[in-house]
Amino acid sequence: MQVQSEIRSHGGTQGVYTHQSAATCTPMTFSVYVPPHAPGARLPVLWYLSGLTCTQANVTEKGEFRAACAQHGIVFVAPDTSPRGADVPDDAGYDLGQGAGFYVDATQAPWSQHFQMRAYIEQELPELLARYFPVDRTRQSITGHSMGGHGALTIALRNPGRFRSVSAFAPIVAPMRCPWGHKALTAYLGPDQAAWRAYDACALIADGARVPDMLVDQGAADGFLPEQLQTHLLAEACASAGIPATIRMQDGYDHSYYFISTFMAEHIAWHAGRLQA
Amino acid sequence: MQVQSEIRSHGGTQGVYTHQSAATCTPMTFSVYVPPHAPGARLPVLWYLSGLTCTQANVTEKGEFRAACAQHGIVFVAPDTSPRGADVPDDAGYDLGQGAGFYVDATQAPWSQHFQMRAYIEQELPELLARYFPVDRTRQSITGHSMGGHGALTIALRNPGRFRSVSAFAPIVAPMRCPWGHKALTAYLGPDQAAWRAYDACALIADGARVPDMLVDQGAADGFLPEQLQTHLLAEACASAGIPATIRMQDGYDHSYYFISTFMAEHIAWHAGRLQA
Repeated sequence: MQVQSEIRSHGGTQGVYTHQSAATCTPMTFSVYVPPHAPGARLPVLWYLSGLTCTQANVTEKGEFRAACAQHGIVFVAPDTSPRGADVPDDAGYDLGQGAGFYVDATQAPWSQHFQMRAYIEQELPELLARYFPVDRTRQSITGHSMGGHGALTIALRNPGRFRSVSAFAPIVAPMRCPWGHKALTAYLGPDQAAWRAYDACALIADGARVPDMLVDQGAADGFLPEQLQTHLLAEACASAGIPATIRMQDGYDHSYYFISTFMAEHIAWHAGRLQA
Repeated sequence: MQVQSEIRSHGGTQGVYTHQSAATCTPMTFSVYVPPHAPGARLPVLWYLSGLTCTQANVTEKGEFRAACAQHGIVFVAPDTSPRGADVPDDAGYDLGQGAGFYVDATQAPWSQHFQMRAYIEQELPELLARYFPVDRTRQSITGHSMGGHGALTIALRNPGRFRSVSAFAPIVAPMRCPWGHKALTAYLGPDQAAWRAYDACALIADGARVPDMLVDQGAADGFLPEQLQTHLLAEACASAGIPATIRMQDGYDHSYYFISTFMAEHIAWHAGRLQA
């Protein structure tokens, strides 16, 4: 693992790191904020998965998470959203290929060689994190934005017990039923929609997956809400399944980091309450 | 004045605006955050002047000021650091010309036609702000980073009574005595150093200018500290003049927005105490 930078911030250290990923067969870059802590301490972790077009840098620069993570003593991890590089397949659209991994393990050519983001996020990166950072693997939570909110919800639903809590900012809740998801899942997984259900939060809930609760904030002025995000489908799925979800429509807010950063501290405090030892 | 964007954040509105400046004879872009407030209210203002290479965007995206401004009910204004455009003179170095206006009114060719940043920040932009935003001109404070810390200190020292308070992050405190300042002041003002003294915080203090107090944070691991920033010169000038300055060396911090954002909320709270009606 190579250290790209380690910079003091809010009493802790904001780092950016690169390593050669076995899952994606590419170098992968991620950021980790380690708050101030006692020597030898093992800290809880909040995973943050980013949205379409983003790298680890967007939330690291604009997410306004460090003050709250320092206050609550939480490590904050932000991976990239896909493999990248000249040898990695891409698409002319921003919503497929590089920057648009959708947190799936692709089975279709030409994507399957590198686009193994489920394995990367669920298996490889947690092991790397535990090796190099002062984390307590029994205390993890997960959140994300848009495509990354989809990632957070589906990863939590597929791995019951691994995360103490899951939240999301403006998540794609039903990729099987929106243009972004339909395009990506067709490309990465092929036309058989039975294979898609493991990557659709609403389908996973319909199929019996459960989380103890969830917190979702969605901007009411988000232009992607009606066609792509369709938050009401998640509310309906949780209601049918008896999942006590807190899903808040936030008046006037859009899809940007100006929205995310507004509610970031509340999400971190909410997770912190569930991450106590 | 053209609205480039207005986005809801932390309960208020983060805007970016462009107007044709009479001072610089160019279009100028600036950002204004207006916190939530009662209809008809007139709010105090905190000016933030940015450092070399920056536009209004750096602090707007990475400054982490909105939560504190919303809490204290303060309007936050971030101007650009120079005139810009294909017709505006520039220099191959990042520390002269576009992005490096040093908040001076240039008197030398080719700079004098457009590089009138003192007039822009001291006269033109405050009038525009008062015309279009809900501000109380009797309650203003000023801060800035690096070259913008220089700007904040010198503007406050030259305009006694205009600002309730002045603070700075890693300011250039004595441009007459550092390479950045020597290069810029020579180019913009010519070789006669008597003309430079109005643009050097330590010289202004030596010449009798005063502020009631000041707050300065400086990263002890800032690579620019020894040669360019020389914080000790400001401490010495304030001690000689009897200005009760709070100048804090912050262990481990560098020159970046990871440093600025760490102490931003404290600076805003400090100004808020002085901006009360």
